[in-house]
Formats: sequence, C-alpha cells, structure tokens
Amino acid sequence: MLSSCGARLRALRALCRDASAPARNPRPALRSFSSEKDPTPLSSSWSEELRLLSHQFMKKCDNGSWTLIPPQVFHDLQYQAYRTFQNSKLMKGRQVSTTLFLARNFQEILGFEYALFYNKDERRVVCFFQGGPLLQGFPGLLHGGATATLIDSIMAILAVNTMGFIMTTTLNITYKRPIAIGSVVVLNIQVDKIEGKKVFLSCSVRSADEKILYSEATSLYIKLDLEKRLT
Amino acid sequence: MLSSCGARLRALRALCRDASAPARNPRPALRSFSSEKDPTPLSSSWSEELRLLSHQFMKKCDNGSWTLIPPQVFHDLQYQAYRTFQNSKLMKGRQVSTTLFLARNFQEILGFEYALFYNKDERRVVCFFQGGPLLQGFPGLLHGGATATLIDSIMAILAVNTMGFIMTTTLNITYKRPIAIGSVVVLNIQVDKIEGKKVFLSCSVRSADEKILYSEATSLYIKLDLEKRLT
Repeated sequence: MLSSCGARLRALRALCRDASAPARNPRPALRSFSSEKDPTPLSSSWSEELRLLSHQFMKKCDNGSWTLIPPQVFHDLQYQAYRTFQNSKLMKGRQVSTTLFLARNFQEILGFEYALFYNKDERRVVCFFQGGPLLQGFPGLLHGGATATLIDSIMAILAVNTMGFIMTTTLNITYKRPIAIGSVVVLNIQVDKIEGKKVFLSCSVRSADEKILYSEATSLYIKLDLEKRLT
Repeated sequence: MLSSCGARLRALRALCRDASAPARNPRPALRSFSSEKDPTPLSSSWSEELRLLSHQFMKKCDNGSWTLIPPQVFHDLQYQAYRTFQNSKLMKGRQVSTTLFLARNFQEILGFEYALFYNKDERRVVCFFQGGPLLQGFPGLLHGGATATLIDSIMAILAVNTMGFIMTTTLNITYKRPIAIGSVVVLNIQVDKIEGKKVFLSCSVRSADEKILYSEATSLYIKLDLEKRLT
C-alpha cells in the first residue's frame, strides 16, 4: 500500500452508492471484491453472512462518510507505485513485480475474503473478513500468521490514507481467542496518534455481532522518504 | 504445529547425517524441503546461497546437537494432529483439513523457502529463509505479514518442541529494515523463559552474514488443554 488512494476512492464512492441503492431492487446484486479478474459480479466466494454484513454497511456510504475499498484498488495502487517509483532512488536497481501478498496467491473461497470500508473524517477502517481453509494453522482454525497478515495489511490501508507512503515499524498482536476457518469477523481499526512521520494505530478483531473479542493489535507506521534507499 | 515431533526428529537425524556425510561425495545432493510432493531431490527453488548455508549448517547435525526439520514434517504433524484430535472435545464438531498456511499455497521459488534446524539442549531453532515474489508487500520487498507469518510459524516449531501442543498468545515484531525479495536471511529463535504453561520466545532476523538486523520479535505461547474446547 504505497499511495494515497483519494482519487480512486472518490471514483468508487459512486459505485458504492449504486450498490447500496434502496428498495427498487430489494436485494441488489453486490459486486465481487474478492476476484482480481472480475470485480463486478456477485461473489460466489463470500458466505451469506459476509454478503449481508457488507451490504448493510454499504448503506453508510450513502452520505459519503464511509467509502468502500475493493481489493482491486490495492492492485491498482501497487501498479501505480511500481510506475511511480521505478525510477526513484528508492527503487533503483531493484527487481519488482506488481504482486501483493495479502490479496493474491489464494483460490476463491479458500483464502482471504474481505470487504473494506474507510472513513476519512474519523480516520477509521472497518473490515469484514472471512478466512478460508488455506489459511489454517491449528486444524480448523486461522493461522496466527494469517491473522497478522490481515491486520498488518488492513492497518496499512488506513496508515497510507492518513500519511501517504508508509512502512510497518512495529506490530504487536494479542491473540485472545482462536478464529474458526470460514467464520466472519469484523476488524475495527483507528488512528490513535500522529507524531511527525509516525502514525500509531490500533485494531480489534471481533465476531460479527462484536460480542467476542478474538484479537487486539497496535502498530506503528512511519512515512517513507522517497529520496532515500530502503535497503 | 500440534505435536511433539521427537520421534520423527530422531528418525530424521539419520537422514541429516547422510546428507552431511563427508568427503566421498564432495558435494552431496541436498534434499528438497520445499516441495510437498517430493521432499528428496535437490531443490531447484533454492538459491545457491540458501543451499550453501543449509549445507554448511548440516555439518552441525553430525554430533546430534542440531537436527534438520524439513517442512514435510509439518504436514505429517498436521495430519497426525488431525487424527489425534478428531474425536477430542477440542475438535468436536469442527470441520478440519490437513492444510497449513505457511508451508502451502505457494509455487516453488515464488513463496516461502526455508531450511530449519533444531537444537533440543539449547532450546534454539535456526532457520535459513528465502522469500519469493509472491510474498511482496512494498514493491521488491517482503510483506510485513509474510515476515510475521514466518516468525510465528518458526517460533511455534520451537514452542511445540518445548511444551507440546501450544497456541500463539502474543506476537510483537519490530521491523528494523525491509527485506528484499529473493534475499536469504537467517532467523535465530530461542526460549527465554518458561512459566507453568507459558513459554516466552525471542527471535532475530538477520542477513546471512548476520551483520544486518532486519527484525526482532518476542512471543508468548500457551500450552493447550486438550479437554477444553477452544471456540
């Protein structure tokens, strides 16, 4: 996550409004945000619960306070970052591709499935997430590394929207209860503090009804200096 | 990682000795530990540096102090855990498979490639790791989530060998410098403290020559009670 995605988010706001349009069609077809190839049709890889929660939340996009961020945006940003930085000192001599760990490498249904919503004014992100069996650690349960990957990636989305180009500096996760494969959880992420180039975030991972706390996390991201080499 | 793998490690020790056997063949064919299907031939997915480092370290297995743990062991343990627990209260009513997040889902060369060594007496694990382009976050660099996944998984291997069946409770990572895709790093993991059912571990991720510190981490794993349900 390497760029402010304000422009794309504004463009997506219209899509979001369409998707949550009321009543004429009592159950509008949701867009699939899980497939890289075709982000438009209803996703077969989302559980009924994930669809319902996402659809309900989409109504909050109507007044413009919340904005939907489909995974396709990550890929666009990654590609944009590649183009932007390929001649910078930061990238000099480095072989890059446009792949991204979180949103790739997994078959539909079996990996990371999620719907993301961003609130610029409140500096918050809400993410509905459904983890497939390829993310298994302990049998039947989400791998701690998959949870960490999810948290780091979603926190980075908020950090990049707050600060621009950033990099993870610390990530502290407390695993309170294990998450069952196939269940839907909700991540609430917020900016706690900004100090110069540093942005401090916190995250909770709860059950869909928010009654069960699965994990808590804090992180620190630091804004990058594009004129400096990283490695 | 759900079982003490002492028996399997003992069996593997002989393999390890064979692989590091001296002189008759000046450069013995190393086993591939990156493929699920065929763990025996030389791995085409390892860089020359990863092969060399692993080969050098294998010599330490000669006196039995260090033991090689190939990824295939993880899969065997996962399957063993499935069989062991499928009728326990812990697993009751839960759909499980034998997949594992870390060691699966990625094509050779492009994902997680690693050689693991365990020292029972010193309660340490050393891991040589090479991250492929599918693990990319920032262009050309390893995703923080991939690093977290690797650290959690390798720490868990030491925890399970120390305590038996465990689960991650806390994971705290400090990212000092980014890791370039394709480079080889070395993880040094040790047990810092044991308190009842708790085991505290620490980890450093350094360059192959150990001069550059990329990341540091601490974690807490807790031994599981097999008579209790987890979720």
